[in-house]
This record gives sequence, C-alpha cells and structure tokens, in this order.
Amino acid sequence: MDERLKKQLDFALEIDKEKNIFRQTHLSGHGRNENDAEHAWHMAIMAYLLKEYSNEPVDIGKVMLMCLIHDIVEIDAGDTYAYDAENLKTQKAREDAAKERIFSILPEEQKDELIKLFDEFEEFKTAESKFAHAMDNLQPLILNNSNGGGDWREHGVTAEQVYGRQSKTKLGSERLYDVIDRIIKENIVKGNIKPI
Amino acid sequence: MDERLKKQLDFALEIDKEKNIFRQTHLSGHGRNENDAEHAWHMAIMAYLLKEYSNEPVDIGKVMLMCLIHDIVEIDAGDTYAYDAENLKTQKAREDAAKERIFSILPEEQKDELIKLFDEFEEFKTAESKFAHAMDNLQPLILNNSNGGGDWREHGVTAEQVYGRQSKTKLGSERLYDVIDRIIKENIVKGNIKPI
Repeated sequence: MDERLKKQLDFALEIDKEKNIFRQTHLSGHGRNENDAEHAWHMAIMAYLLKEYSNEPVDIGKVMLMCLIHDIVEIDAGDTYAYDAENLKTQKAREDAAKERIFSILPEEQKDELIKLFDEFEEFKTAESKFAHAMDNLQPLILNNSNGGGDWREHGVTAEQVYGRQSKTKLGSERLYDVIDRIIKENIVKGNIKPI
Repeated sequence: MDERLKKQLDFALEIDKEKNIFRQTHLSGHGRNENDAEHAWHMAIMAYLLKEYSNEPVDIGKVMLMCLIHDIVEIDAGDTYAYDAENLKTQKAREDAAKERIFSILPEEQKDELIKLFDEFEEFKTAESKFAHAMDNLQPLILNNSNGGGDWREHGVTAEQVYGRQSKTKLGSERLYDVIDRIIKENIVKGNIKPI
C-alpha cells in the first residue's frame, strides 16, 4: 500500500475514537449520554433537511462536512460542556494541540483542507459556519427538550446561559431561533431552566 | 410553528433512535459494539477522504448523504448481520415497511427525496451507490482488523462469506478492494477467517 493511502486509512482508524467521547446531552427516551460521533451524524442530516431555513444561501455539502468533522479535536481535548466556564477558558489551547496532532495523520493537503474547514467553523464568519453552529445548538436542544429538559436541570442552567449560547443560532437561522426561543420559554415556565 | 417545520423536527427527533441500533462490529481498541449512527458518520467521512479511489467519478455530497441515511430503516427493521443467512431472507420486507413509516414523517417531497436516495443505495447501480457500498464494507473491516479479527472469529466467518460480501467493494473501488483483499488474506493466515 502506498504512503498516501496508508495515511488516509490510519486517519480513518484514529477518528474511530470520537465514538468514545461522551457529551452532557442524553439521547431521547431518557437514554444514555450521547457521544460526539452520533452528535455529528445527527447534525449533518439535520443541516441537509433544514437548509431552507439558513439566513443566507449555503453550500450544503460543505456544511455537512463541517458538521461531521467539527468535534474530531475532542478525541484529545475532550468534550467541553457549553456551560462549564472553567474548562471553556482552556478549550482553545487544548483543541489547537489536538487539531495539529490528529489532522497531521492525513496526507499534507487533506490535513490543510480539514484544518481550514475546522477553523472556518470555529471562526464563525461564513454562512456555512453560522448554519453549522445553528445545528450544533439545535440538535442537543431538541433531545434535551424531548427528555423534559433533564440536562438543564441536572446542571442548574440559567436562561441567561441558554440565551447566551443560542444567540449564535440566530445568526445562522432566524427561523430556527424562533422555534428555539419558544422551547426555551416553555422550559423556563416548567422550571427546567432557571429564570435568571 | 408551521406544519412543514414541525414534520422536519419530528423526523430529526425520530432518527435519534438509530443510536440505539447496535451492530456486530466492535469499536477499535477492543471496544463495545458500534451503533448505526456512528457507523454512518464514519462512512461519510471516509467517503470524502477516499473519493479519489472511486472507480468512477462521484457526486461526493450525494455519496455522503447516502452514507448518512442508509441505515435509518434499521430503527424498525433492526441490524441484519452480513453473514446471517436466515435474517437476510426477510431483510427487504422489514426494511421496506420501515422505510415507508419513518420517511413519511417528513414533508412529502423530502420523503420522496430520501426514499429515492435510499433506493438508489440499495439498487447498487450508480457510481455513488457503488462507492457508498464500498465504504459500508471497508469501514467495519478496518475496525475488525484493528481488533485482531475478533468479529470474524466470534461468528466463525469463512473466506467465502467475506469474499462474497467484499466482491461488491471491487465494483466501487478496485484500489480499495486490493487493500481489503490483502487484509482478508492476512486474517486467513492468522486463523481469524476460516479458509473455506
């Protein structure tokens, strides 16, 4: 086998580890914690089916690939819970080191391509990255809402925290943000999200 | 929320159940059984990175979407192990019923679109479906090989069975089939796959 194909298959095997990175979100039906690979799969399909609600036209293939790869760095860096202020401070440094190690397994130009796509997601400037972030926020919200807001209650999450995160969703999709806003308000009324 | 968006979000929640459909394949590092959602995620990324090895040019966005949705029917139909002759007989009927129920949650034209894509995968005629099938075969093989062929040994799988399945891989990618052929031969020598 030539060096190029060997690198590609080594990378394919390496990313299998993403299936062992568990998130705070629980599967619907009061299931177990979700892992990063499942989350990425779910986001990519949702992106495709909900693309008509993006604020701006998007290259949907690019959005899907962005969704699929956006958490690969967590193989080394671990999942950082969206409302964990302490770990959020070190998240970027941990993820930068992971990015370099993991994508370097690939042939040079594929490494560069995936890092560019990952960085585009993180920089949150393009239409594609904004819509991908909207999926990153919407996907766990619909699971959590289906479970009676258990993940919010478990962590004592406040409306301010949820709105802080979901304000980014609005930049990707005003329409989906309206749905999210209604779900958040319902969960505040039900006592699942703290009102302050 | 209007009816269309409600249907789309209902579907998004429904497919969460795919994360509970477990396969015979084990994760690398002698891990637990893999589920369908993780498998689909893995296949889609591999398809993107290995697209240069497709026998024919492919619309890679279409291949990726095909990979992502190809096992949704298993939410109702369950996973049918590739070497389970008895269950393979009823697989199509079970999957057809599942396809109708699950995709019907979507708005009509999205239902039609995903069923068309699912059928294209199953019919195995287009370049995209052939390459997607190659990923469906290659992905569990690299995991199983990384685990010393444990999944083959557990089920007493024969070379004839493995080659029967992997012969389809060749139609999607001659180049990747060469790699697979070498891995199979190594695993026969090691006694992980029965020689007959």
